[in-house]
Amino acid sequence: MKKAVEAIKISESFLITTHRNPDGDAIGSELALAMALWKMGKTATIKNLHSVPEKLMFLPNANKIHQTCKVNDCYDIAVLIDCENLERCGNIFSSENYKTALINIDHHISNQNGSDYDIVDCCSSSTAEMVYWIIKELDVEIDKEISTCLFTGIFSDTGGFRYSNSTPIAFEIASKLMSYNIDPWEISLNLYESKSFQSQKLLGLVLNNLEISNDNKISWLTLTKDFFKKTGTTPSDAEGFINFAREIKSVEVALMFREIGESRVKVSFRSKGSINVAEIAKYFGGGGHKNAAGCVMNGSLKEVQDMVIGSIKIPVSEV
Amino acid sequence: MKKAVEAIKISESFLITTHRNPDGDAIGSELALAMALWKMGKTATIKNLHSVPEKLMFLPNANKIHQTCKVNDCYDIAVLIDCENLERCGNIFSSENYKTALINIDHHISNQNGSDYDIVDCCSSSTAEMVYWIIKELDVEIDKEISTCLFTGIFSDTGGFRYSNSTPIAFEIASKLMSYNIDPWEISLNLYESKSFQSQKLLGLVLNNLEISNDNKISWLTLTKDFFKKTGTTPSDAEGFINFAREIKSVEVALMFREIGESRVKVSFRSKGSINVAEIAKYFGGGGHKNAAGCVMNGSLKEVQDMVIGSIKIPVSEV
Repeated sequence: MKKAVEAIKISESFLITTHRNPDGDAIGSELALAMALWKMGKTATIKNLHSVPEKLMFLPNANKIHQTCKVNDCYDIAVLIDCENLERCGNIFSSENYKTALINIDHHISNQNGSDYDIVDCCSSSTAEMVYWIIKELDVEIDKEISTCLFTGIFSDTGGFRYSNSTPIAFEIASKLMSYNIDPWEISLNLYESKSFQSQKLLGLVLNNLEISNDNKISWLTLTKDFFKKTGTTPSDAEGFINFAREIKSVEVALMFREIGESRVKVSFRSKGSINVAEIAKYFGGGGHKNAAGCVMNGSLKEVQDMVIGSIKIPVSEV
Repeated sequence: MKKAVEAIKISESFLITTHRNPDGDAIGSELALAMALWKMGKTATIKNLHSVPEKLMFLPNANKIHQTCKVNDCYDIAVLIDCENLERCGNIFSSENYKTALINIDHHISNQNGSDYDIVDCCSSSTAEMVYWIIKELDVEIDKEISTCLFTGIFSDTGGFRYSNSTPIAFEIASKLMSYNIDPWEISLNLYESKSFQSQKLLGLVLNNLEISNDNKISWLTLTKDFFKKTGTTPSDAEGFINFAREIKSVEVALMFREIGESRVKVSFRSKGSINVAEIAKYFGGGGHKNAAGCVMNGSLKEVQDMVIGSIKIPVSEV
């Protein structure tokens, strides 16, 4: 990290980017780093493939993040945040867009470590935790705005300090960030209490379709296209609905089937214990992590459900 | 606190109790203190008016908590935990049940401070945070089991580190507790991922009844008696449902109307901002806090809804 910090100190202009569909850790980390660089008198521009999700627009300077398919300018340094490779940021930039170095700041074990300065630590709770240390190393004083962004990053990636990456260090940093007078309730209101009336109605319709296997280990939700029409919602309103199937006590694998075309269905998988849903999703042409995966399949809702649930029954019965 | 700790050190037998309908902070604090006393070679018995909620039964030694309407034995010291007065613990004991002293450990501002040793600190995130300091003062080594109980207490009372009582100190203690190898995800699974299939179906029915006022500031849910029959659930399965009305972005006041008899309706109130719902509930014969209150009213669902929503419209329109 020291070498990267030295390179940052002597450079003037920075391009910062992150992965597609950026989450709280990605946006929070980008903004915190940019604000630290601004405080050092440097130029830092954030450019992402996708726009900032509405619920993260409360973050200070979120409106300064640009959306682009292709970066045209040239900077001293490009910083890839919370992103395992260039493809994941949508290849919006290449080596032509930076003069000195590419810096990679990430906590994903899958990171491909191919930059000039790789700061990759898969023991960190979040990329925001790593940016905290970098800002310390850069000798920039943390303020309420930087703290809000870093806290949001850690909070998002630890599932609100619930996941196993909620390490003692994550709590310790959160404690330090809290002392900059940030308001965790205000952050929570923005992250979790900004739902629309329509998306709650959509949830009601989807829950009416909740089903469970005879052994209570597999539970699934079905979302038909006409639910969106009925409620005036879009697929982004259904984000997280699969958790309502997962949070049933006996459930080992939760599924959501979403109709995306005449004969096309998006299947999302979540598992709680030992079942590797990435393998199942891969078998059907998709991918993901052990506990969260997805695929898109051809067929009617009924056909796809029968096929997928049938294929899960054997591994689940062995749990 | 020092005097209370001295009294604890020289005493042998302890009665520990807490408030009606005990929550994670109450049960976690009781168990942590009892285990610390056991490690000191003392006798400590936990007796509560109500039983331990199913979702907290994972806590170590939860099965050793007794349920009783009246304590018969006599102890050296009685400890009232997370409880503002004797009435709130159901008056299950009196001065006849302890020889030396009554100790009061609580973080509620409403605590009536009437014991021999009052340890009341309304700046603490939770009673568990206070029990942490007491255990330190007693010189008992914290272990994984005590840590799990204290962490659960802090986690519960800060709403998973989301509320404004998530202080830097709460995070600092959480960091120290984490180092005893506790598993936050396991705790979360028990607290939040132990729902029943039936309660999720009930949620679906209730969300189908979600309504919102024209100005989008008041949202309400209606739960009729036949929903319980249809889904084979009980009122405890509907705990927290009101949050689905509250978490709508524009909403200032969320309500839930639950039919409890032929012409009787329980009304729950939640507010996000400046509206004091306790005052509204009080007007209808109930009570509560500024942001969470309730009352029971006579009338049909329709009559009660018209009355309550009508009375809220004026204060809400001024927000």
